[in-house]
Amino acid sequence: MNKVNPLIENQFDLQAVNTYAALMTQGNGYLGVRGSFDENYTEQTRGMFVAGIYNKFSSNDVTEIVNLPDLVGMKIEIDGEIFTLQAGEVVGYERQLDIFTGELVRKLVWKNRTGHRFQFHFQRFVSKADLHTIASKVSITALDTPASLALKTGIDAQQSNFGKQHLIEENVRVMEKRIMHATYRTSESNLQVALATFCKVTQDSVPVFVSKNRQLTATYSQHLEVNQPFVLEKISAVYTSNDVGVDEADAASIQSVERNGSAGYDQLLNQSAAKWKMFWDNKRVKISSSYEMDQLALDFSIYHMEIMTPAHDERLSIGAKGLTGEGYKGHVFWDTELFIAPFHLHTVPEVAKKLLTYRYLHIEEAKYKSAKNGYEGTLFPWESALTGHEETPEYAAINISTGKRQKVASADAEHHIVADIAFAVVQYYYSTLDEAFMQNEGIVLLKETALFWISRAANEGGRLSIKDVIGPDEYTEHIDNNAYTNYMAAFNVQQAVFFLDKYNQKDLTFDQRAKVFLQNLYMPRPNEEGILPQDDTFLTKPEIDLTKYKMKQGSQVILLDYSRAEINEMQILKQADVVMLLYLMPNLFPAEIVKKNLQYYEEHTIHDSSLSKAIHAIVAARCGEQDNAYRFFQEACLIDLGSNPKSSDEGIHAASLGANWLTAIFGFANITMEQNQLAISPKMPRNWSELTFPFEWQGSTLVFTISQTELKVARKAGPEVSLRVNKKIYKVLNQIQVTL
Amino acid sequence: MNKVNPLIENQFDLQAVNTYAALMTQGNGYLGVRGSFDENYTEQTRGMFVAGIYNKFSSNDVTEIVNLPDLVGMKIEIDGEIFTLQAGEVVGYERQLDIFTGELVRKLVWKNRTGHRFQFHFQRFVSKADLHTIASKVSITALDTPASLALKTGIDAQQSNFGKQHLIEENVRVMEKRIMHATYRTSESNLQVALATFCKVTQDSVPVFVSKNRQLTATYSQHLEVNQPFVLEKISAVYTSNDVGVDEADAASIQSVERNGSAGYDQLLNQSAAKWKMFWDNKRVKISSSYEMDQLALDFSIYHMEIMTPAHDERLSIGAKGLTGEGYKGHVFWDTELFIAPFHLHTVPEVAKKLLTYRYLHIEEAKYKSAKNGYEGTLFPWESALTGHEETPEYAAINISTGKRQKVASADAEHHIVADIAFAVVQYYYSTLDEAFMQNEGIVLLKETALFWISRAANEGGRLSIKDVIGPDEYTEHIDNNAYTNYMAAFNVQQAVFFLDKYNQKDLTFDQRAKVFLQNLYMPRPNEEGILPQDDTFLTKPEIDLTKYKMKQGSQVILLDYSRAEINEMQILKQADVVMLLYLMPNLFPAEIVKKNLQYYEEHTIHDSSLSKAIHAIVAARCGEQDNAYRFFQEACLIDLGSNPKSSDEGIHAASLGANWLTAIFGFANITMEQNQLAISPKMPRNWSELTFPFEWQGSTLVFTISQTELKVARKAGPEVSLRVNKKIYKVLNQIQVTL
Repeated sequence: MNKVNPLIENQFDLQAVNTYAALMTQGNGYLGVRGSFDENYTEQTRGMFVAGIYNKFSSNDVTEIVNLPDLVGMKIEIDGEIFTLQAGEVVGYERQLDIFTGELVRKLVWKNRTGHRFQFHFQRFVSKADLHTIASKVSITALDTPASLALKTGIDAQQSNFGKQHLIEENVRVMEKRIMHATYRTSESNLQVALATFCKVTQDSVPVFVSKNRQLTATYSQHLEVNQPFVLEKISAVYTSNDVGVDEADAASIQSVERNGSAGYDQLLNQSAAKWKMFWDNKRVKISSSYEMDQLALDFSIYHMEIMTPAHDERLSIGAKGLTGEGYKGHVFWDTELFIAPFHLHTVPEVAKKLLTYRYLHIEEAKYKSAKNGYEGTLFPWESALTGHEETPEYAAINISTGKRQKVASADAEHHIVADIAFAVVQYYYSTLDEAFMQNEGIVLLKETALFWISRAANEGGRLSIKDVIGPDEYTEHIDNNAYTNYMAAFNVQQAVFFLDKYNQKDLTFDQRAKVFLQNLYMPRPNEEGILPQDDTFLTKPEIDLTKYKMKQGSQVILLDYSRAEINEMQILKQADVVMLLYLMPNLFPAEIVKKNLQYYEEHTIHDSSLSKAIHAIVAARCGEQDNAYRFFQEACLIDLGSNPKSSDEGIHAASLGANWLTAIFGFANITMEQNQLAISPKMPRNWSELTFPFEWQGSTLVFTISQTELKVARKAGPEVSLRVNKKIYKVLNQIQVTL
Repeated sequence: MNKVNPLIENQFDLQAVNTYAALMTQGNGYLGVRGSFDENYTEQTRGMFVAGIYNKFSSNDVTEIVNLPDLVGMKIEIDGEIFTLQAGEVVGYERQLDIFTGELVRKLVWKNRTGHRFQFHFQRFVSKADLHTIASKVSITALDTPASLALKTGIDAQQSNFGKQHLIEENVRVMEKRIMHATYRTSESNLQVALATFCKVTQDSVPVFVSKNRQLTATYSQHLEVNQPFVLEKISAVYTSNDVGVDEADAASIQSVERNGSAGYDQLLNQSAAKWKMFWDNKRVKISSSYEMDQLALDFSIYHMEIMTPAHDERLSIGAKGLTGEGYKGHVFWDTELFIAPFHLHTVPEVAKKLLTYRYLHIEEAKYKSAKNGYEGTLFPWESALTGHEETPEYAAINISTGKRQKVASADAEHHIVADIAFAVVQYYYSTLDEAFMQNEGIVLLKETALFWISRAANEGGRLSIKDVIGPDEYTEHIDNNAYTNYMAAFNVQQAVFFLDKYNQKDLTFDQRAKVFLQNLYMPRPNEEGILPQDDTFLTKPEIDLTKYKMKQGSQVILLDYSRAEINEMQILKQADVVMLLYLMPNLFPAEIVKKNLQYYEEHTIHDSSLSKAIHAIVAARCGEQDNAYRFFQEACLIDLGSNPKSSDEGIHAASLGANWLTAIFGFANITMEQNQLAISPKMPRNWSELTFPFEWQGSTLVFTISQTELKVARKAGPEVSLRVNKKIYKVLNQIQVTL
């Protein structure tokens, strides 16, 4: 395997500390630990999150993922001087997140203020073999002269969500003078969090344990002899009362640490790294590109999709920043179904099923929201968390100039999420042929979402309109007949009718209403110039030159020049809207129309949303505009991996990482699936000589290898697969090889 | 005036940052702002407190003084580098709290990592002329080369009590693009806090205002030309819903900043400094000593007594750390009445009255506690806050080894506070002859406290005992007939009888019961060796060598060797107990007995309490042991001003500072007051050539000037005073001069 180290930091940079902390997050879907430094910095925001542990600080606040007590921080003093890279001199420095083993390693030599050198070697991982385990190791060596060392570490519950404290301290203990243990309870959601940690040192240093001001710490004092490393291993466990199959979180945390403490860092790392090896062996997308960043970006994207996904628990879904920061409060959006789930669907379909099950388990809450808004069926929340209720803040942050809070329209109008979920259900079915899921959960989701649309449409003299919605483009609010929404809604209802029929669950009343809906729903059509109107009024609005804003895409600087109301009245897009529709429904319009719309809407799109660029890349690739596509792809990769040192302070952009994978598979490899027919028609960037990736399809495991001139498809498991390559259909039994 | 600068820091020391922050606290009794650096440091604990603003974080917690959103912090970036004294090089550095003007000033030249020099000049004060105002000023000058500056400051509500967040954000505003304004509400006590701040800069830099994550900030970006200082003034206001005479805290805060913003830093400082000048002119204790630390310690003590005392509001009293930190949660102890109030009583008696009024206003809560414990009258809480209810935590912090919480005995048994308050009432009366207070509030306090003692005594075959108490010495718990307690209780009852009689309010039943109490209460007497037993069993307990622990006095290291239960069964004192009694009642026993007891008990006292040393100094001075007394005094001064860089991290030791003043006045000057008779019998340390201090007595303002050979007393105001000097009585009309 061509091992690329996707994240290497060669220089300590205080300004970039939080973006690196997000990018270098380690985790396993249960747990996310930001890649913060062991030592503290004033600018540094630490973070440890457990999927599903949300809390509401006060009735003024929305529920948010809780930033848990810190387990990785340590305070190191050498000869009374606090170790920090801001002081003294850093002689050598390298920090690296090895995504192939899951280990974060930092090596450096530090000259203290008296000019003596000390070597530091920090290692850390979150286990992929045991969801609850975090381990770290630090080795400190005096290189020039003996010195006195004091190292303090433990459990730090002063950690909060930017000053909001969600946890009430329940219990703090040191068990048998070895294991530090503490339990906390969230103040509103009443969830228990149990932490335990155990330190082992090479020397015979006896720790002093102290509990004070929400910190439980062990301090090791050690005389350092020259060239004799002091090594401390710290093995920690995190359990919560929300964990499936765990009776007593507190007992479980202690037992875990007792068990793992005797195994030690290296053995635990090996177990975890072995799981990562399996992961990469089975899921990596390999790119031979003249530009090595392409491979890095894909590796990075897949790494993060893996650690952000709570694959262990179908009651949970994926936050918009994964478990890498507090951005978007850890809430779940349509990002999961349309941007991230496809990766799982085509590598481990079981995980995609669990993500749909999360929605299925919250049908009641979605019905509640729908009824409250005067509709039938399920209106899934725009933002959701553990309870499945709408979690979108009712009002935006206060406008500090006017003192007013604007109502957040998303929860009231961004209804396309309902159809997005239905779309994912259908996609899941055709990719897996999982009749059991479809016949039970899938069909319910399809029918209830369809019912929503049927009740949502307004009769305007016989024509049905879907009025007052927001499409994917959030710069255009409260419009009628958003093309994306209407086409997706129609698909939703159509598929419900089809599958109810297929499983003999036809409901005559529903069937009748669905047919009326499908016959009468207004479906926008391309105008004379071939442009599909984004909504009823969009194309009539004035245009402005967006060059200035496109230069700073992703930063929403247009809001400094125009109010949201003003933007709403111009042809300005935050993100792909019609283009998103063209991506999801590649055969809706002829290629020529697709191309025209791509060009028209891209010109009017600032790409202020991280969900935009990669979707443009896919549609451009399919249009044969490989150079444009590749440029869009490269720019999309820079959303997290670019040079802006603050880009990802509050977490990585989960959907955008998913979209990078989508671009490779559905853009450059150009796989499409029309119901049962898998098809491929590669549109490789010029400077990619080879693209290799695994792909699960209807129970078979395929491996695609694409060059500029040839396609190879190998079947590794499962039944024979029918594959259309360009216009010809092949049967893939063992392997096929097609010249392009 | 011989101007001593009591607090100068000549070197930046990260390890001492919090002790300096406490020592350099600025305030005015309403507001306390820790002397933290403007820029952030990981080790730095900021603090802003308003007297009376307490809150309980959860039902597991006790109420604590709320660490309010920060108004003084700023983030300074020069050419993209964050200004911190940990990085680059500090060429010149001086920080000074000028207690005579109330201004904290820091000057330094900083070389950034590229070697360019920048001059910084920071100034700050909390107004003594307007309780609600904080002002700061920073001047930044590029010395070598032009540079780009970014300065961010505002209102930072991420501040918490070590991770416990007490405040819910209510409202955040920028008024007319000038004034930042925010209001918060405490989560349990439901108090509103309103902050407003306004920045003015010399250049035409236009701020960018941002509200995010509980921080409301203005960022100024400025190009610095060489030798052209950028100056920013920040004028802030703090109001709360608990303020007397303020209807709308939020409107008041904005109006204040509007008014003061146009006045500007220098004018506001002048107003405040004028008040400080008046204060020092009237209250300073001047010492001509061969050791300049003596003057510094007294100045420091008086400065802090002034800023810790909420003289503006009789509903409030003084926390054990004043408003300088979170130690002891801001709770009020007996420290107020016996250690701090005397300073006010003999300089501005009105303030002493207000402190007693605080108790008077909470008679109902004290009755409630008394009744709950099965007694009559008032059992004042050992620790109290705004409500007047007992606030002592029921259980101590968890024992992390055993997982058990020990019950805190103080609230259950440290009952001497009842008599301490009564003592302060009597002392107030004789020092002021304030008949109005005594006839109304004073007499009620005396009677109710007396009733408590009468009901508290247990009849043991005719003899009355006060059983199961804790005296001032907290290393000896749950003992019977604590000498301090019994003598103070008898005094309490005696005085109640006397004053009820004096004001013709005699209650026959009470009178009868009081007389039975006084006749039968067991009063411990000195044994054959002349030692007054601290309690019924103390002198029978084994002794150990305390040398080791006395070496580390104040740190309670004995608890590492012995459990509290073990210490309880030995002759080990944390602090003055019998000695405290001998201080308060100098004529209780002959001088010889006093001397013997001082020596005996001092040998058995570790001085682990900061209330101990100075009291020993007073009694030693009165015994003619000036050298011992001076040594005790000097050691007492080091409690906050010693070389331990962590001594005062959580706040200064309020009672110990009060006791420094007590030592000068009641020890070295050796003023005593037997009811109506003021007396003095100087016991000056050998190396003090002169001691001068003001003293209020029964409506007269006296100024004492004492040398080794002579006493001068000048009457500045009020009626003629009768003064006994040594054994002779003088009438002080204008001035007397007595050779000693």
